[in-house]
Amino acid sequence: MASEGSKPVRIGLLGRGTVGAAFADLLAERSDAVEAATGLRPEIAGVLSREEGHFEAILAGSDLVVELIGGTEPAREYVLAALRAGKPVVTANKQLLAQHGDELFAVAREAGVQLRFEAAVAAVIPIVRTIQESFGVTEISKVFGIVNGTTNFILTEMAASGAGYDEVLVQAQELGYAEADPTDDVSGADAAAKMAILARLAFHTPVTLGEVTYEGIQRVLPDDLAYAKEFGLSLKLLGVAERRDGGISVRVFPCFLYRGHPLAPIEGPFNAVMVEAPAISEVTMSGPGAGGLQTASAVLGDVVSILAGDAPVHETRVELPIVADVSSSFYLYLEVADQPGVLARVATVLGDHGISVKSVVQRGIGDEARLVMVIHECLESKFAEALAALEGLDELRAAPRAIRVIEEEY
Amino acid sequence: MASEGSKPVRIGLLGRGTVGAAFADLLAERSDAVEAATGLRPEIAGVLSREEGHFEAILAGSDLVVELIGGTEPAREYVLAALRAGKPVVTANKQLLAQHGDELFAVAREAGVQLRFEAAVAAVIPIVRTIQESFGVTEISKVFGIVNGTTNFILTEMAASGAGYDEVLVQAQELGYAEADPTDDVSGADAAAKMAILARLAFHTPVTLGEVTYEGIQRVLPDDLAYAKEFGLSLKLLGVAERRDGGISVRVFPCFLYRGHPLAPIEGPFNAVMVEAPAISEVTMSGPGAGGLQTASAVLGDVVSILAGDAPVHETRVELPIVADVSSSFYLYLEVADQPGVLARVATVLGDHGISVKSVVQRGIGDEARLVMVIHECLESKFAEALAALEGLDELRAAPRAIRVIEEEY
Repeated sequence: MASEGSKPVRIGLLGRGTVGAAFADLLAERSDAVEAATGLRPEIAGVLSREEGHFEAILAGSDLVVELIGGTEPAREYVLAALRAGKPVVTANKQLLAQHGDELFAVAREAGVQLRFEAAVAAVIPIVRTIQESFGVTEISKVFGIVNGTTNFILTEMAASGAGYDEVLVQAQELGYAEADPTDDVSGADAAAKMAILARLAFHTPVTLGEVTYEGIQRVLPDDLAYAKEFGLSLKLLGVAERRDGGISVRVFPCFLYRGHPLAPIEGPFNAVMVEAPAISEVTMSGPGAGGLQTASAVLGDVVSILAGDAPVHETRVELPIVADVSSSFYLYLEVADQPGVLARVATVLGDHGISVKSVVQRGIGDEARLVMVIHECLESKFAEALAALEGLDELRAAPRAIRVIEEEY
Repeated sequence: MASEGSKPVRIGLLGRGTVGAAFADLLAERSDAVEAATGLRPEIAGVLSREEGHFEAILAGSDLVVELIGGTEPAREYVLAALRAGKPVVTANKQLLAQHGDELFAVAREAGVQLRFEAAVAAVIPIVRTIQESFGVTEISKVFGIVNGTTNFILTEMAASGAGYDEVLVQAQELGYAEADPTDDVSGADAAAKMAILARLAFHTPVTLGEVTYEGIQRVLPDDLAYAKEFGLSLKLLGVAERRDGGISVRVFPCFLYRGHPLAPIEGPFNAVMVEAPAISEVTMSGPGAGGLQTASAVLGDVVSILAGDAPVHETRVELPIVADVSSSFYLYLEVADQPGVLARVATVLGDHGISVKSVVQRGIGDEARLVMVIHECLESKFAEALAALEGLDELRAAPRAIRVIEEEY
């Protein structure tokens, strides 16, 4: 209950864009609830935006700093200054954490203050807290999911309408699901930053953005989606961080999933993340992956945890190598000559490279003849060699197209 | 990293059944990780089982108590004694919390010690932490989901095979998904205890088991499932806790969901819980709802939070009335005489009670004639009156059958 005697907590708010404005409103609306839960009454002590405020003055007058500027500079400088001044920081800034995580966490540890960032990954889905706290001592084997809403919206629409990438992108821009310059989202770079953060937390090891390999969805064709349906597959842009061969692999790539996979029904701008470990089997969390209010809500949850006196986050504890060559299963799309023996030639090339075929569909005649197959898991380097060999076949009318598949059928 | 200088933490383990034994093993396996995360080295100081141990001695020699006996007595007595002795408690005991929550939370608050219970609801799905911490100051409007794996397994199998309830129950018992005496699960009582706990947390108000109304799945017929498919519906046993008319409603009942609903794809023994609030839209969490190791894993997460020094859980803050009469949408199954005007008679009765029909299917001839419909949301008391009036119609060959539906199509 609100009482006049409660101790005020002064919050310095850096940034007043969509999320910043939503956070200020939400904090005002929920201040009684925050006070009831923590015994402390939060108030905005100062706001830094392009138009107003001076960082040094705001920092001096704040007990806690909320960074919602975005980008790496001056956000990095401000967050470091706040931590060094002994003030806890809450941020929603994925690029900052993915690019400068080592430095930020080291400074927070040295200063003995908290740095919280639930909103940096999948907005209000509490995946950061779950990995850090619920599963903080769990031997996590894999964290993966759909962590970019723009691309999931585009892929969902392409599959539903049969329309091409360019056409659906324009539609997504009109609906506000894609930016005017969509590069960061559609290239997989945004998802890569989020996966760098999740990998660091899940495996207690430093991971930076440069160590995450990523592919986007720009080259996905309506044909890929149409043929994949025959195998019961749907396409998602997946971020995958997993233990492999004594190290870890952190990647973002378009990937087919079988019907029944927990991520298959996630459609439109939603996000979903799965965590796998022997002791938990698998846990899936889904919800809106963006939105001003939803992101602000995640920021507020972090602020409350700090005010309530929750313990600081665990530190990075080990150094795991990044494994470059991992095994994957692939969907393979070949435009072939309509003549006897083509399937045998292709199968022989694959077999020579130790690659086995899980399922195959042969379709069309003449210039429309196609072989579409799903192959069992193999080392990606082996698969690349096989692809190069296939390109040398006279029977192929175009370069082979390959997309990864998660092979498990549920 | 393990170091000989770390302070040991002595854990008193009450109960050595499936979960207790799994917890002891998991703690031993993860003790290095616990030490790295918290700076404290956990060790089992004593175990109380039917064969060994004395509670007073174990309590005296422990810094923290893990209660995995189950049932209300002597678990209640032990947990109260531990809290009064100033020792934090972690429990997986849903019945204890649902029946004696007020007393336990009051004593924990008075003593200033933590009582944590993630494993009491949906095992390793971190729904308790999410509601208490991530959404601790969020105005939650609704928490609902599939919180009993036994019934979800039975309903999934019935829908897939067309077999009857009794036959599938035997199968579930053979597979270990149902107990020899399945009453607690199939009657909805187990789910009701979990919903009492979730409602208390979500709405910050005291809720006890006696205030939760529940129905089970014992009377579900294969026909209900078969006809519902025509509407694109699948059947789940839902627990629903929601704000209604200035109060709250907490109920468990079989319920149809439209295809596309986030809970519709949850099959077999899995659990899933959704949280809705204006500031978060909706978040869904799913995973295994039972299992010794999974439950032990949730217990360990709570132990680590206590060792790490996380803040105690928030208290109950308001008193919200339980609203008895709420609005629902229904699926209605009528065996009718095969003669003209039957639909008109039925529709007139419904219309007279202010009930409107969303969709209707008329099937079969002669003794097989049936009207199956979905009606729009109406007060359940109004619907009960309409059902009574329908029973009076000469055209009905059997008592009407009604099952709730969540009307939203996704």
